Amino acid sequence: MKKVSRRTVLASAVGAVALHKTATTAAPQAPSDSTKATGRPSSTLGQRSSFEQPKRLTGGAAASRTPHQDLTGMITPSDLHFERHHAGVPAIDPRRYSLVIHGLVERPMVFSLADLRRFPSISRICFLECSGNFNRTAGPETTPQALAGMTSQSEWTGVGLATLFREVGVRPAATWFLAESQDAAVMARSIPVAKAWDDAMIAYAQNGEAIRPEQGYPARLLLPGWEGNANVKWIRRIELSDRPFMTREETSKYTEPLSDGTIRQFSFLMDARSLITYPTYPATLTPGWVEITGIAWSGSGLIRRVDVSTDSGKTWTAAALQAPVLPKAHTRFRHLWNWSGREAVIMSRAVDETGYVQPTRAELIAARGPGSLPYHLNPIVAWVIRSDGTVVYREEAWG
Amino acid sequence: MKKVSRRTVLASAVGAVALHKTATTAAPQAPSDSTKATGRPSSTLGQRSSFEQPKRLTGGAAASRTPHQDLTGMITPSDLHFERHHAGVPAIDPRRYSLVIHGLVERPMVFSLADLRRFPSISRICFLECSGNFNRTAGPETTPQALAGMTSQSEWTGVGLATLFREVGVRPAATWFLAESQDAAVMARSIPVAKAWDDAMIAYAQNGEAIRPEQGYPARLLLPGWEGNANVKWIRRIELSDRPFMTREETSKYTEPLSDGTIRQFSFLMDARSLITYPTYPATLTPGWVEITGIAWSGSGLIRRVDVSTDSGKTWTAAALQAPVLPKAHTRFRHLWNWSGREAVIMSRAVDETGYVQPTRAELIAARGPGSLPYHLNPIVAWVIRSDGTVVYREEAWG
Repeated sequence: MKKVSRRTVLASAVGAVALHKTATTAAPQAPSDSTKATGRPSSTLGQRSSFEQPKRLTGGAAASRTPHQDLTGMITPSDLHFERHHAGVPAIDPRRYSLVIHGLVERPMVFSLADLRRFPSISRICFLECSGNFNRTAGPETTPQALAGMTSQSEWTGVGLATLFREVGVRPAATWFLAESQDAAVMARSIPVAKAWDDAMIAYAQNGEAIRPEQGYPARLLLPGWEGNANVKWIRRIELSDRPFMTREETSKYTEPLSDGTIRQFSFLMDARSLITYPTYPATLTPGWVEITGIAWSGSGLIRRVDVSTDSGKTWTAAALQAPVLPKAHTRFRHLWNWSGREAVIMSRAVDETGYVQPTRAELIAARGPGSLPYHLNPIVAWVIRSDGTVVYREEAWG
Repeated sequence: MKKVSRRTVLASAVGAVALHKTATTAAPQAPSDSTKATGRPSSTLGQRSSFEQPKRLTGGAAASRTPHQDLTGMITPSDLHFERHHAGVPAIDPRRYSLVIHGLVERPMVFSLADLRRFPSISRICFLECSGNFNRTAGPETTPQALAGMTSQSEWTGVGLATLFREVGVRPAATWFLAESQDAAVMARSIPVAKAWDDAMIAYAQNGEAIRPEQGYPARLLLPGWEGNANVKWIRRIELSDRPFMTREETSKYTEPLSDGTIRQFSFLMDARSLITYPTYPATLTPGWVEITGIAWSGSGLIRRVDVSTDSGKTWTAAALQAPVLPKAHTRFRHLWNWSGREAVIMSRAVDETGYVQPTRAELIAARGPGSLPYHLNPIVAWVIRSDGTVVYREEAWG
């Protein structure tokens, strides 16, 4: 029996544990021989191993980010799903919850949570991404979480908004609807009615159980593939109209100045993007085989291809995509690479089923005007593997 | 604006909350108007709403069951995944973990966790079910959890066992391997090598993050579609051989006496099965439209069809299957039913891609001998909707 010499313990694995340990947490303990003592009994609710402490990264009181560098697969554990709210996470009693649908409809109605749950249900696995999910001032010591941790994925279950719209009898003249939250910001957005007939949902469950409070408990609007803030959480009111409502969150915010001097409004679609999750900061590599892996997604539908470059974008190779590849969903990609030990720059580039190709930073800057806001930035980014094996984010200048 | 009169709050929704409340838990609180006060700030780790307290049902120290009556979709939250262990849940330091592969191999090797993670990875969503997942003495007040809560589903990520077997050079003469745990039971099972070449995996991640302790942290054997106990958790040793090892867990246990007087051994495959999750005990219905929903799965591959009966098995209708339908995976089925208010008996029956049809209790009893053990029982079961709307499990006699 021998130890494989070329596979030494990666320093990064130990480093990652240390990184998550807080000052007040005792070092995790385990007996040296686990076969010598009976383990703990079964429990009503599981806990993570004390050696594993993945955490969201909080950015002020109004946001937190998913630790993509710690994750595998395509499902985001619900307690690690990113957060973004405008007046905190409200506490809502599900027995008092209601959703009003009114305006240009035949039969205005109020639905309790039990009412919503009684309708035919649908489930889908899809991503949800904040339109502001890019850190333009990221330095070398930036994790995927800190760079772009405001995208997460769950299996959502709820009632199709089309089902509710048929129930209330939406009038033909109705082209937009207002979706209004019952949080303290009374967050509200105007949404085209066509999205309801397509694939919008009032979701009440996430990864098999009730939606978590910060994701809209007890019910939220889900608009697969569309910017997070339009997926109104804690939804209490939908008003049908023949025009958009011009709320604060679609006029003074969540719009993009363009280079031709105009301002883009109602930019709902999240374009195709990819994010390498390993190797990235703070991993440390040793020469030899490395699996480059990450997630790619597109609000337009299926990811068709993810290209990976290990020579700073000079040449690209199609990565393997993990089945099932689902529309509007994080798709895991993997590419096996033999690292020589010399400095290298790795990148990934998503292509979706419409043929859309994830843009470069230069292409994005050219399209956006001066004073550009940080919305809908999905550039190809780069990670530098230094010759000592450390991995850092490659800084980029953003106007 | 009006309230839909035929949709009154289902008593079951409130009842379910009360059921999960423990004596020591304060009643959950929420302000009457959530728009009047700023909510709580973002957090590093999410918590469930205090109004939602799904729990595993512990059956002694060695098992716990998934609350299927509380769940939707196909993913089981990791902290609600069923447990089954023979000497408790060991605490294992991942930095000291190792997996030995030896016996009929060219190059015996020891792999650290970092070694395992360095190999090409694969992910798959599949069910895991205990072969003893049926309560033959269930009375009317039995939930799906208490009846058959020892099946759960996760997205698992790890390294293909075939990859490791190629690495160590498994010899052609090797037809079986021993999988041995490092728990205090030193649980061990013999597995045909063919399963490794097919789809077995050494899994180190579950639903995107490290495997939970009670599911085998830091690494377990995963044999998609095969009985849970063969999916050895906390795996520390694999020995290749030209014959099975005849361990305690495949001789004195986990075998089935048959009606012809023989005993079935190495009954790995979990046959097709379905389980209605709603409406079941303790739900209460009101007349009108009810969505009958549940999960169906087969160790042989895809679920082809789930039939639902609302007249005690006299007539059957194919339910809708939620896409994506994945092989060896819980598949959500749904059937819309207009309940008249008269007593009714509902059932479900799974059919898989091999044409296998979920058997009746009578068929199972005929096939098994006297003194039959409670393994591999997957009968069609029935739930009675009483005229007062209460739902109970229909008791059955098991010899």
